[in-house]
Amino acid sequence: MLHFDSDYMRGCHPEVLSRLVQTNMEQTPGYGSDEYTSRAKKLVLKACGLEDGRGDVVFLVGGTQTNATVIDLVAGRYDGVICVETGHINVHESGAVEASGHKVITLPSHEGKMDAGELNEWFTSFYGDETWKHMVRPGVVYITFPTEVGTIYTKAELTAIREVCDKWNTPLFIDGARLAYGLVSSADVTLKDIAALADIFYIGGTKCGTLFGEAVVTRHPEWLRHIVSHIKAHGALMAKGRLLGVQFAALFENDLYSRIGRNGVDTAMALKKGMTERGFELFMDSPTNQQFFVLPNEVIDRLLPRASFELWGARQATHTPVRFVTDWGTTEEDINKFLCLL
Amino acid sequence: MLHFDSDYMRGCHPEVLSRLVQTNMEQTPGYGSDEYTSRAKKLVLKACGLEDGRGDVVFLVGGTQTNATVIDLVAGRYDGVICVETGHINVHESGAVEASGHKVITLPSHEGKMDAGELNEWFTSFYGDETWKHMVRPGVVYITFPTEVGTIYTKAELTAIREVCDKWNTPLFIDGARLAYGLVSSADVTLKDIAALADIFYIGGTKCGTLFGEAVVTRHPEWLRHIVSHIKAHGALMAKGRLLGVQFAALFENDLYSRIGRNGVDTAMALKKGMTERGFELFMDSPTNQQFFVLPNEVIDRLLPRASFELWGARQATHTPVRFVTDWGTTEEDINKFLCLL
Amino acid sequence: MLHFDSDYMRGCHPEVLSRLVQTNMEQTPGYGSDEYTSRAKKLVLKACGLEDGRGDVVFLVGGTQTNATVIDLVAGRYDGVICVETGHINVHESGAVEASGHKVITLPSHEGKMDAGELNEWFTSFYGDETWKHMVRPGVVYITFPTEVGTIYTKAELTAIREVCDKWNTPLFIDGARLAYGLVSSADVTLKDIAALADIFYIGGTKCGTLFGEAVVTRHPEWLRHIVSHIKAHGALMAKGRLLGVQFAALFENDLYSRIGRNGVDTAMALKKGMTERGFELFMDSPTNQQFFVLPNEVIDRLLPRASFELWGARQATHTPVRFVTDWGTTEEDINKFLCLL
Amino acid sequence: MLHFDSDYMRGCHPEVLSRLVQTNMEQTPGYGSDEYTSRAKKLVLKACGLEDGRGDVVFLVGGTQTNATVIDLVAGRYDGVICVETGHINVHESGAVEASGHKVITLPSHEGKMDAGELNEWFTSFYGDETWKHMVRPGVVYITFPTEVGTIYTKAELTAIREVCDKWNTPLFIDGARLAYGLVSSADVTLKDIAALADIFYIGGTKCGTLFGEAVVTRHPEWLRHIVSHIKAHGALMAKGRLLGVQFAALFENDLYSRIGRNGVDTAMALKKGMTERGFELFMDSPTNQQFFVLPNEVIDRLLPRASFELWGARQATHTPVRFVTDWGTTEEDINKFLCLL
Repeated sequence: MLHFDSDYMRGCHPEVLSRLVQTNMEQTPGYGSDEYTSRAKKLVLKACGLEDGRGDVVFLVGGTQTNATVIDLVAGRYDGVICVETGHINVHESGAVEASGHKVITLPSHEGKMDAGELNEWFTSFYGDETWKHMVRPGVVYITFPTEVGTIYTKAELTAIREVCDKWNTPLFIDGARLAYGLVSSADVTLKDIAALADIFYIGGTKCGTLFGEAVVTRHPEWLRHIVSHIKAHGALMAKGRLLGVQFAALFENDLYSRIGRNGVDTAMALKKGMTERGFELFMDSPTNQQFFVLPNEVIDRLLPRASFELWGARQATHTPVRFVTDWGTTEEDINKFLCLL
Repeated sequence: MLHFDSDYMRGCHPEVLSRLVQTNMEQTPGYGSDEYTSRAKKLVLKACGLEDGRGDVVFLVGGTQTNATVIDLVAGRYDGVICVETGHINVHESGAVEASGHKVITLPSHEGKMDAGELNEWFTSFYGDETWKHMVRPGVVYITFPTEVGTIYTKAELTAIREVCDKWNTPLFIDGARLAYGLVSSADVTLKDIAALADIFYIGGTKCGTLFGEAVVTRHPEWLRHIVSHIKAHGALMAKGRLLGVQFAALFENDLYSRIGRNGVDTAMALKKGMTERGFELFMDSPTNQQFFVLPNEVIDRLLPRASFELWGARQATHTPVRFVTDWGTTEEDINKFLCLL
Repeated sequence: MLHFDSDYMRGCHPEVLSRLVQTNMEQTPGYGSDEYTSRAKKLVLKACGLEDGRGDVVFLVGGTQTNATVIDLVAGRYDGVICVETGHINVHESGAVEASGHKVITLPSHEGKMDAGELNEWFTSFYGDETWKHMVRPGVVYITFPTEVGTIYTKAELTAIREVCDKWNTPLFIDGARLAYGLVSSADVTLKDIAALADIFYIGGTKCGTLFGEAVVTRHPEWLRHIVSHIKAHGALMAKGRLLGVQFAALFENDLYSRIGRNGVDTAMALKKGMTERGFELFMDSPTNQQFFVLPNEVIDRLLPRASFELWGARQATHTPVRFVTDWGTTEEDINKFLCLL
Repeated sequence: MLHFDSDYMRGCHPEVLSRLVQTNMEQTPGYGSDEYTSRAKKLVLKACGLEDGRGDVVFLVGGTQTNATVIDLVAGRYDGVICVETGHINVHESGAVEASGHKVITLPSHEGKMDAGELNEWFTSFYGDETWKHMVRPGVVYITFPTEVGTIYTKAELTAIREVCDKWNTPLFIDGARLAYGLVSSADVTLKDIAALADIFYIGGTKCGTLFGEAVVTRHPEWLRHIVSHIKAHGALMAKGRLLGVQFAALFENDLYSRIGRNGVDTAMALKKGMTERGFELFMDSPTNQQFFVLPNEVIDRLLPRASFELWGARQATHTPVRFVTDWGTTEEDINKFLCLL
């Protein structure tokens, strides 16, 4: 059986695992006050170009938790968060953002992306008269890189959104749950660009090589002044915090995060090439580790006993969109085996 | 100056005021445990056909407060509330519903109304696969009668929504902030129908003759078992609860609530007739106390020094939609004076 | 029947009522944007010595609502509020403060009052080591003036608490639900002192002459920048906001607020004198409109058919503490009649 | 350096680690819908005597998260939770319980334990009159086994608390963060007793052999009907849920959970024996893996460069209470080495 359902199906990258095994019997203080966590913080900040007190980082366990905790940190009480309709926080987080009192305000999605012009129009209209006092104020803008459908913003697009955020004095939060794959496939956006353009963002671990863990980075270190209490109030503080430190230190040593991203994207491109050569239609053209095709239902039925993947929406009359996801552990051999199934 | 901005611009109906004045120096126990409140409850339940323990009623101060408190009472923890995009809770309540953890889930608005078929489709799609566990469960359906744009549901339309709610085991909550005007203008919906079709609803006072106050009615009296604590936790319990009892008793004696509705609708119809006779275009055809026209900007500019009303959205190039609202205190003379201004 | 249960049993002071009646049919804009509210704001700020932009004021409906809304405004997300064990927010508000995520942290009560030395010790111990990151940070200090048992702080005591708040950089919030009675009975604390010593406080209306309403005053006007949205998210924004403005303008014209306080205190002192002369024991010596005695149960049983008052705690074997409350409407005649009952 | 600061300083028990390593490259569905989690559920329910649909279990990541999520599941909206003053949720969880709107109501602590008689008195007094409607209703009773100071309830004590909960119709929640150590040291309480006496409880993993993870067990399986959404709304749903399943399956195979508890308690008893033989005074007599002594400050100063442990409260003039914690990884050799340091 070949699995392409998602990028959280395996444990962690072997280099991460070996660090967890090596350090397992050591005793360290809890809650992220250990040396491994300090080291991981330094490595992450360096990779982001935020050394020397120009930034800070904190580690959380999972993606929905991170989105809810960060939005509740950055947005004012009862402020909302602007995102596109397909945004993860709007669709697939069981109301975790609303659970702490923040409305999700939606803009149209353009293959998963927000349009800077539409964002500016929204702000212009919102603050157009006094009525906004009776509406939910936007406290933060949320975008994903890559998006939920595997697309990525160009540097120009990100910069345009940044400028709108500056104009309306609203912070920008980038969800990087799959950042490794996005950075590798981007023509012009680097980790340092993300760190400079976002006010706060996170480097995804769960889908990019760790057992779990997301690194929240900000160039406003003062925002994290009471972060331990804030995280704990969200039930999100890990007792054995060093598990996060050990894993993120491994990701940011020896270029592992890039290698992980590279493997996911390379195998995804091999899959795309193989599928299009065989005449299958793309549902959406993604440069990252998520690939979307429109397959005849008979092909889907033939594949499913031997390969797992997601129907993208409900099954349709003759052809149905499907999603295939690769990751750091997918091999060329997996792709070849799958293409042979066709 | 003639005012048609809204229906909360005056104090209260003189018959209500006189009861407040008469009872002012009496001393009664607090928090709604007084005799006036008991009497008002009985009158309201009788008018709703819910006597003899078949229903219960509780009084709150304002509309947004009532929506937030009722939704938080009826929906499960972190459940969402379904409403149309133009729904008051989605647009004009500063996030009061999300403040207690409930997402507002939106359906298309058809001149302010929800379509039962679309509601059923939404439920069918939502519960179509296991994904819903990662989404916000719908804990209650919210509609307004009349809607925010002055339209009203027919009895058949309400019944169809009721049936969808039954099918998907989800309660129906009707916001009746302007109920007096809606009942008077409806061809076939009575207060008893509303009480039987909704699981819980409220009879608006603030916009229909009282200084403030909304009467929440339910045919599930057990839902109000701990209502005092729940209301107080929402900061919504009035110390001098009898003020609500005195006012609602006045509304439901001598047919006052109907007379109030009738005056609002009659004067609105006179306004509509006068305007259309003078060749002005309707923006939307409302049978209630809100009237919408599309006026040439020059007419708007000429009127504004002598009459106040709301632009409905941003001012446009040559013609702009506007809203006029009448209420229990609007007179035929007001309408005539206004028509003369044209 | 004579009623001494509480100070919210009557409607409003006749001078307030007459203003409501006079203005009833006027039409004004909503939500506190009317002229009456502007006028009331000016009068209140002047009485507090906070004219010329040195302060701001906003009106809410009730006491629990005000406490919850202000604490949620001033304290950081998930910060706690320090108060004495007998504090109203800790005991009698159905969890309204916790409802928006703020823990109530308690100190010992000294006849209802907080001790500045104990407050300082608490802070010293709390910030003594790093453990506080895992505890609830204190975001605001809450005291009541007068307290729930009718006692009042001297100016020296208030100043000492203020100094501790300054030392630990934590704002001070004073709940003045019964402020009128407290100011009149204090030897040295004026309204201007309260306004200068508290960061934010409220002037109670509900128990001091209005139908409802509390005026929140702060010498940090920037704190109220988004106050309309914040209040509305708490379900606390009154549509006919002018009702609050009309009432508070009446309270602060012609010295009415002081006269109201004076009547409550004078009649309370007459009661105290009469009772002690008749040999009844004080349970607590209060200078304000709440009076506490320890009465023999047989006296209580004899009085209850003709006078209502509260047992202060559970009935005891032979003697039980009781509370009597006077207000702006209590007359000398009421007191004399009551003393005759004995 | 010898570490006795806490029982979360190491990674996980080698038998748990080896299962994580073995399964690392397998691909499984997410969010706990995998086979490992199913297997772990069966093992846990069997150990609890809750097979055949008589109970259900769900896995969370950490202790504070579990307390907040369970209390918010079980208690009604705005209901409080009763615990002793030293209860973990009251002291060391940064307000995570209040964050979702639940007040912590405290009773006196008797060496960390709640007294059933005092609990009954509290309920009797609370429901003594109508005032409770203005107070926070108790929605759940919370105790810890073992307590925060290492003491344990006897079966008779637990049964007495259970009876009070039944009498007042309030569920009982037992926090078993250190349950392994408590069960081993108890004379008469078994895991099945805990499962039968509590309405809901959790079996701690983080402090008892896993990297992280707590197993919430209830004999009311219907309570977990919407648990995935509830957990996700709390930001507490682990994407790679199988990590929890793999670890808990390991704990409940081959009697590992008991062996872990046994090692912690045996080494703690060896420490206690060694210390008391050397004449050091017990601060509190604990039968579990936490040991409390009162040490002369000079002894503390001599030890600290070579052994870490916690001062229990602030350092005092000549002697200071200290806490030593052992766990599944502490060896006899560690204890002997430490005793030699003395």
